[in-house]
Amino acid sequence: MTRKQRRLALRATKTHNYAQKVGQIPGEMVYVGDKEGKPTSIRVVSYDEKTQHFTHIEEPGHLANFARNHRVTWFDVEGVSDLAKLKALAEHFGFHPLMAEDIVNTEQMPRVQEYDKHLFVALKMLVVDAADGSIDIEHVSVVLGDNYLISFQEDKKGDVFDNIRERIKTNKGRVCRLNADYLCFLLIDAVVDHYFFVLENIRQRVENLEEDMLEEPQRNIVNDIAHLKKQFSLIRKMIFPLQEELDRLVRDESEFIQASTLPYFKDVLDHLRNLTSSFESFREMLYGLMDLYLSNLSHSMNAVMKTLTVITSIFIPLTFIVGVYGMNFKHMPELNWPNGYYLALGLMAAIATGMVIFIKQRNWF
Amino acid sequence: MTRKQRRLALRATKTHNYAQKVGQIPGEMVYVGDKEGKPTSIRVVSYDEKTQHFTHIEEPGHLANFARNHRVTWFDVEGVSDLAKLKALAEHFGFHPLMAEDIVNTEQMPRVQEYDKHLFVALKMLVVDAADGSIDIEHVSVVLGDNYLISFQEDKKGDVFDNIRERIKTNKGRVCRLNADYLCFLLIDAVVDHYFFVLENIRQRVENLEEDMLEEPQRNIVNDIAHLKKQFSLIRKMIFPLQEELDRLVRDESEFIQASTLPYFKDVLDHLRNLTSSFESFREMLYGLMDLYLSNLSHSMNAVMKTLTVITSIFIPLTFIVGVYGMNFKHMPELNWPNGYYLALGLMAAIATGMVIFIKQRNWF
Amino acid sequence: MTRKQRRLALRATKTHNYAQKVGQIPGEMVYVGDKEGKPTSIRVVSYDEKTQHFTHIEEPGHLANFARNHRVTWFDVEGVSDLAKLKALAEHFGFHPLMAEDIVNTEQMPRVQEYDKHLFVALKMLVVDAADGSIDIEHVSVVLGDNYLISFQEDKKGDVFDNIRERIKTNKGRVCRLNADYLCFLLIDAVVDHYFFVLENIRQRVENLEEDMLEEPQRNIVNDIAHLKKQFSLIRKMIFPLQEELDRLVRDESEFIQASTLPYFKDVLDHLRNLTSSFESFREMLYGLMDLYLSNLSHSMNAVMKTLTVITSIFIPLTFIVGVYGMNFKHMPELNWPNGYYLALGLMAAIATGMVIFIKQRNWF
Amino acid sequence: MTRKQRRLALRATKTHNYAQKVGQIPGEMVYVGDKEGKPTSIRVVSYDEKTQHFTHIEEPGHLANFARNHRVTWFDVEGVSDLAKLKALAEHFGFHPLMAEDIVNTEQMPRVQEYDKHLFVALKMLVVDAADGSIDIEHVSVVLGDNYLISFQEDKKGDVFDNIRERIKTNKGRVCRLNADYLCFLLIDAVVDHYFFVLENIRQRVENLEEDMLEEPQRNIVNDIAHLKKQFSLIRKMIFPLQEELDRLVRDESEFIQASTLPYFKDVLDHLRNLTSSFESFREMLYGLMDLYLSNLSHSMNAVMKTLTVITSIFIPLTFIVGVYGMNFKHMPELNWPNGYYLALGLMAAIATGMVIFIKQRNWF
Amino acid sequence: MTRKQRRLALRATKTHNYAQKVGQIPGEMVYVGDKEGKPTSIRVVSYDEKTQHFTHIEEPGHLANFARNHRVTWFDVEGVSDLAKLKALAEHFGFHPLMAEDIVNTEQMPRVQEYDKHLFVALKMLVVDAADGSIDIEHVSVVLGDNYLISFQEDKKGDVFDNIRERIKTNKGRVCRLNADYLCFLLIDAVVDHYFFVLENIRQRVENLEEDMLEEPQRNIVNDIAHLKKQFSLIRKMIFPLQEELDRLVRDESEFIQASTLPYFKDVLDHLRNLTSSFESFREMLYGLMDLYLSNLSHSMNAVMKTLTVITSIFIPLTFIVGVYGMNFKHMPELNWPNGYYLALGLMAAIATGMVIFIKQRNWF
Repeated sequence: MTRKQRRLALRATKTHNYAQKVGQIPGEMVYVGDKEGKPTSIRVVSYDEKTQHFTHIEEPGHLANFARNHRVTWFDVEGVSDLAKLKALAEHFGFHPLMAEDIVNTEQMPRVQEYDKHLFVALKMLVVDAADGSIDIEHVSVVLGDNYLISFQEDKKGDVFDNIRERIKTNKGRVCRLNADYLCFLLIDAVVDHYFFVLENIRQRVENLEEDMLEEPQRNIVNDIAHLKKQFSLIRKMIFPLQEELDRLVRDESEFIQASTLPYFKDVLDHLRNLTSSFESFREMLYGLMDLYLSNLSHSMNAVMKTLTVITSIFIPLTFIVGVYGMNFKHMPELNWPNGYYLALGLMAAIATGMVIFIKQRNWF
Repeated sequence: MTRKQRRLALRATKTHNYAQKVGQIPGEMVYVGDKEGKPTSIRVVSYDEKTQHFTHIEEPGHLANFARNHRVTWFDVEGVSDLAKLKALAEHFGFHPLMAEDIVNTEQMPRVQEYDKHLFVALKMLVVDAADGSIDIEHVSVVLGDNYLISFQEDKKGDVFDNIRERIKTNKGRVCRLNADYLCFLLIDAVVDHYFFVLENIRQRVENLEEDMLEEPQRNIVNDIAHLKKQFSLIRKMIFPLQEELDRLVRDESEFIQASTLPYFKDVLDHLRNLTSSFESFREMLYGLMDLYLSNLSHSMNAVMKTLTVITSIFIPLTFIVGVYGMNFKHMPELNWPNGYYLALGLMAAIATGMVIFIKQRNWF
Repeated sequence: MTRKQRRLALRATKTHNYAQKVGQIPGEMVYVGDKEGKPTSIRVVSYDEKTQHFTHIEEPGHLANFARNHRVTWFDVEGVSDLAKLKALAEHFGFHPLMAEDIVNTEQMPRVQEYDKHLFVALKMLVVDAADGSIDIEHVSVVLGDNYLISFQEDKKGDVFDNIRERIKTNKGRVCRLNADYLCFLLIDAVVDHYFFVLENIRQRVENLEEDMLEEPQRNIVNDIAHLKKQFSLIRKMIFPLQEELDRLVRDESEFIQASTLPYFKDVLDHLRNLTSSFESFREMLYGLMDLYLSNLSHSMNAVMKTLTVITSIFIPLTFIVGVYGMNFKHMPELNWPNGYYLALGLMAAIATGMVIFIKQRNWF
Repeated sequence: MTRKQRRLALRATKTHNYAQKVGQIPGEMVYVGDKEGKPTSIRVVSYDEKTQHFTHIEEPGHLANFARNHRVTWFDVEGVSDLAKLKALAEHFGFHPLMAEDIVNTEQMPRVQEYDKHLFVALKMLVVDAADGSIDIEHVSVVLGDNYLISFQEDKKGDVFDNIRERIKTNKGRVCRLNADYLCFLLIDAVVDHYFFVLENIRQRVENLEEDMLEEPQRNIVNDIAHLKKQFSLIRKMIFPLQEELDRLVRDESEFIQASTLPYFKDVLDHLRNLTSSFESFREMLYGLMDLYLSNLSHSMNAVMKTLTVITSIFIPLTFIVGVYGMNFKHMPELNWPNGYYLALGLMAAIATGMVIFIKQRNWF
Repeated sequence: MTRKQRRLALRATKTHNYAQKVGQIPGEMVYVGDKEGKPTSIRVVSYDEKTQHFTHIEEPGHLANFARNHRVTWFDVEGVSDLAKLKALAEHFGFHPLMAEDIVNTEQMPRVQEYDKHLFVALKMLVVDAADGSIDIEHVSVVLGDNYLISFQEDKKGDVFDNIRERIKTNKGRVCRLNADYLCFLLIDAVVDHYFFVLENIRQRVENLEEDMLEEPQRNIVNDIAHLKKQFSLIRKMIFPLQEELDRLVRDESEFIQASTLPYFKDVLDHLRNLTSSFESFREMLYGLMDLYLSNLSHSMNAVMKTLTVITSIFIPLTFIVGVYGMNFKHMPELNWPNGYYLALGLMAAIATGMVIFIKQRNWF
């Protein structure tokens, strides 16, 4: 990475302003996401094993007239910036105010919370930007009610749940035969599945760093390592709370989840555990690379210093001797010896040989 | 930071004298805060969904005549240095002696404790000084009784609870419809909210350090890192116990908190958890910067050493040769060769070239 | 290791593509292992203390006709790439879809899960390649049903369970007198036993590194350490979850395990704990070697620097003096002194002696 | 610290001989403290809210005649070296043999243990020697019986409990109105209070180190840091087990502690928690100072190396050139040029300027 | 330590071959200890408070005829290599096969396990070899039955339990009045007591290292530190599991341990906790010594570099100047100045003074 690229990457991972929601009334809905959020629209999918029905609801007011004749009704809300619509929706379904607040608070960390009438799951969609390796974060919430489910997504990078809608349409898999809690699992699973793309991207970058290091042992990869470490820290902040909260949900055997659906939640928890352990082992590899780099640096410095010392040690005494016979004293008998020059050269050869032997013994090369 | 600024910053974060409360009788009220504490005054806010009433009580003795006709009465005590008044107050409400002690002990760490008749919450208001980035700490305590709540604050930096009083006055939000435990939540939430300002300030400083490092890779940022690390340590000491203690309160489903208010406490706990995890990730970034700095230093040292070694290795042998032909021996045949000078220059050019090739092979530049 | 060997080793431990199972329907059987997986074949061993019967089932369809007359029937499935056969098998025994998915998902991490009718154990066979020290991983699953057990293995490196089949055939040990849960223990134990080979291989390599270090204190062993650390990380990922999951199984006293078999499971758990603690202590030894290497490097650099400084400090002043008397000024009285030359030599001897004393005092050699 | 002081400090913190109690019969009373322990004497304080009575018991045999007419009787034993007396005492009160052993074993670590008839608390009085900063450790045990309490102290550095005796005498605070378990709390609290003096001493020394570092960034403070780290390790060994054991006592709601006294024990636990967290943050500061020191060292080395390299790089080529024109070849045309000397000087000026520009570009100064 | 001694020490701590028990039938008795194990012999001590009886049993077959008339019978088995005898013994007492396996498996880690009829305790006797500081490990197992106890020891270094037999013979202490579970405690306590000798040996060696470091700050103690770290790792592996397992036994209030014996087990657990914490603090001291050594090295390198730089910086410019006036140009006016020589000397003195001032300002000496 050039310095400019690094600066861009730095800016790309810039953390948000933590103070923007301070002073707000608890339970008040405040949208803190991108200025130009997607307009809010509600797709409705209602299904049982016999029929599947797809429609749109323009205005939340129309919800009152909407008959829920199927076993499961899924309200798929895209865009969470239109507070008026979302407030009407929250009122219609009797959302707890804190739950309503967390749905539009796109800075909300992953969380699983049981309220009187709803199970609330906030989680984070992670998408790696292929170009510069930065990670885009999208806030996703899922509200599980009696025989219905409402999902909310910012929908910045396309619809995460397309896949699942497709399966319902084609009545593929178990989804149409099971209840809303299974759909809830499917949505969480879809988001968690995407984390494996992030993991794969990280894996490739760590292994590239490793290969680079092998090619050029002294290349300065510290900035790249620092950048990856920051991403690991970010990812952990997004994944780890979800794991903890889901674990609690499964352990407490929540009423919102039927016994027959529990194994599925345990499965997604198992995926999260594997993700965390894989991220941790990559993090460890990064630390290993850092150590490798620093010890390569020390090793190279050692070699350079030895070269310097060897050359200096050999030539400095010789230079002294030629200096002696370069002096202009009147009376320097050696200067007049017929073989003085050759004797001096011989003396110098002997000293150089001595120094080389001394160095060899010290095992420097 | 200049050395002088650093010394000032050091002094600003100087820790207090830990030994000043030693030897005191347990349960005795002893004020250990700033010498010139604010005079103690009691504002009373009593409210229900219909009416809200605001008044002042000059002397705690007047409390006996004060009729509590509303659903909730909030005694908002500012200044905790007037021990006589506070003792009268403590007696009127039947405070446990340990609770009374912790209210005036401004060095008391965050704590949540249930006594027979009261729930006691001690917490710390943190305010970042914009000028020098030092953190001011203010001791805040909240006592939740049957249908009343008493809050205590040192009130050094203005009133933290203005906001909430305003909401009661304008009957905004849910506060007037709910009981004293909700008010208790609101006060805690107000303090915790302020922590996000501290987080935001820290975030900016860490990111500034990061940019500085990018501009000048060898600039000595170690002192700044050390300063921030000390602040992290301080903040953790103020926030972490509160999280632990609130977590216990929520888990044990204390009688002082109604089931309908519990989700709010869980929400403030969720904020604390996010704060802690954010602080931890900034701390990690600091350690990363330190590593970056040290490896930049090593890298630069390596480059400097190589330059020294290259220049020395090339010129020292040449200087030796010119020294040889600078000797004054009578019989040095080369000196009389017509092309002796040019041959010597050629020999030196050959040696220099050889050294350059040797260095190139070692891959030093 | 040469650079080429290292590159090969790097490639050998290359992690798989994490993203290949993303987007799959939960509970769907998808084979992600080696392209040319072994063809699926089912060996059947049925036994009680009186008779033991060995046979093959070609087609899962034949299972319907298979009478289970013995106390225990063991279906030993080799090769998990033939999805059609495995689906038929899963259907015949009423596998939970998630369990069926995990059996063919060769990337599934170790896991113990109780389903309605089966206890499912996924674990990893580890085989060290003697040639290059790389570790081969084979996915093994065990399904424990009412009075039968089904084992699945990729069977890349020969049959792990040969040993156990032999014991049944010869009615050796307790296996024929006990139920299917004991057989389940035996299979897990066989896999865990193999981990000790891996441990032994690692032990030898760590101790070789240690001896190398003793022979050549400055030899660059950092790459070898990094390579071993990666293997430790891999092994931990394979062993640690198994330990955790088995621990939960034993603690919860699962219905699938009889009270009399529990001590055996506790025994395998004890082996796993010893394995983990041994791996940890080798890991610590590796870190110690790294520290040793770095401090040897520093020590050697220190010695080199001192040599350089000593030689330079002695000869540089002398060279200056001979330079002085090499100047060509007309009026340099010393040059005409009869003993000038000898006085100059004496001066230089005195300076050299002074430098040597100065250095001795600084305790450099 | 000079080397001599350091050696003394090293000796002052010398740990005791761990092997001296090996081979002893469990439950046997063996005194392992200072040879010349204080003679054992028993002060008796008996009190209730009406009267307070102070006396001495010379011989434990007299205990049989001692009537316990007050609500609480406190036997305050000073000096634990007189085994005969202590054995008689232990027999009179029916001490468990292990408890009796731990009372005289001055090497016993902090411990809280419930026996049939007694609650036993062993803890450590810590006193900082103002002169050399070494920490003196005194063994203190408290035995809580039905309506009496027996305290044991080595009493090397004066009486820790003077304060409490004074309060009983003057009937100050709540002590005379409450039972023996409150007295037990008071004694523990008195010891824990003294830990804050130690904390204060440590705080000052850490901050002094910090200021020293600011004044002289390269001063070798590593020995002082090592000394403080050893003290932290010692303190933690003395405080941490007490915290753990008291925590267990409070959590298990021991029968020895009345419900009304429990908040006081929770309070002392809260103090211990704050102590531990403060010590931890000072420990972290020490590590920070160490990092600071090492990076200052690296920084200074870097600056020194650059100076060396700059001076060498500029003068070595020039010295070569003057060497060239110092050669004695017959035929060196430049020597005869009228402006040869000035041209050579010009050439050297040009080379020096070039080197300075080269160095400036590398941003070395 | 010389290199040879180090190599010997390395060999002495060589870990065993982990793979030698792989493939064995679970519950099969396999001896893996020293080839020439001691022959197996059974001493029998039976006692109650009235009489104590000592005898030998040659053949386990004779056990059938042995009447257990006393309250407690202790079978003290020395040497675990004679599998035939041990198998007969195991059969006679109805050992669980896994327990029998662990008794002869001298590589078995510490473990406490309850079986139907027996409590099994495996632990490790540690003996420090005074000569080379290596640690010998001996496998000890204790089986507690209804009113009898069977102990097994390899008996390589003399009998650990002599002491206890002596106490029974002389009816000293409580042992003859109490049951077999108290004897079980005594045996465990005897082994744990020996750990304090190891601790004491380690303490002395760590403090010796510390003194060495003070005498010769740059002496290479890294190998000694590495050696001690390995021993710490070994000791932890031997002690830590025992602590964990005993803790579980005490917490679960096993039926094998009577309520009145429980405090004794808690006492041995307390000793183990102190041991672990002491070993941890010595380990920390070792890390501190390592840091001290490395920072001493850096400090010395810094001083050496400064000396080199100072000498070079002063003399290199001077040498250049004398070189200038050593040039042989025809026209060098300065050479003919009457005071040229003295002016040149003056110029050089000025330059040297300037360099010294420059260096002083940089605060290098």
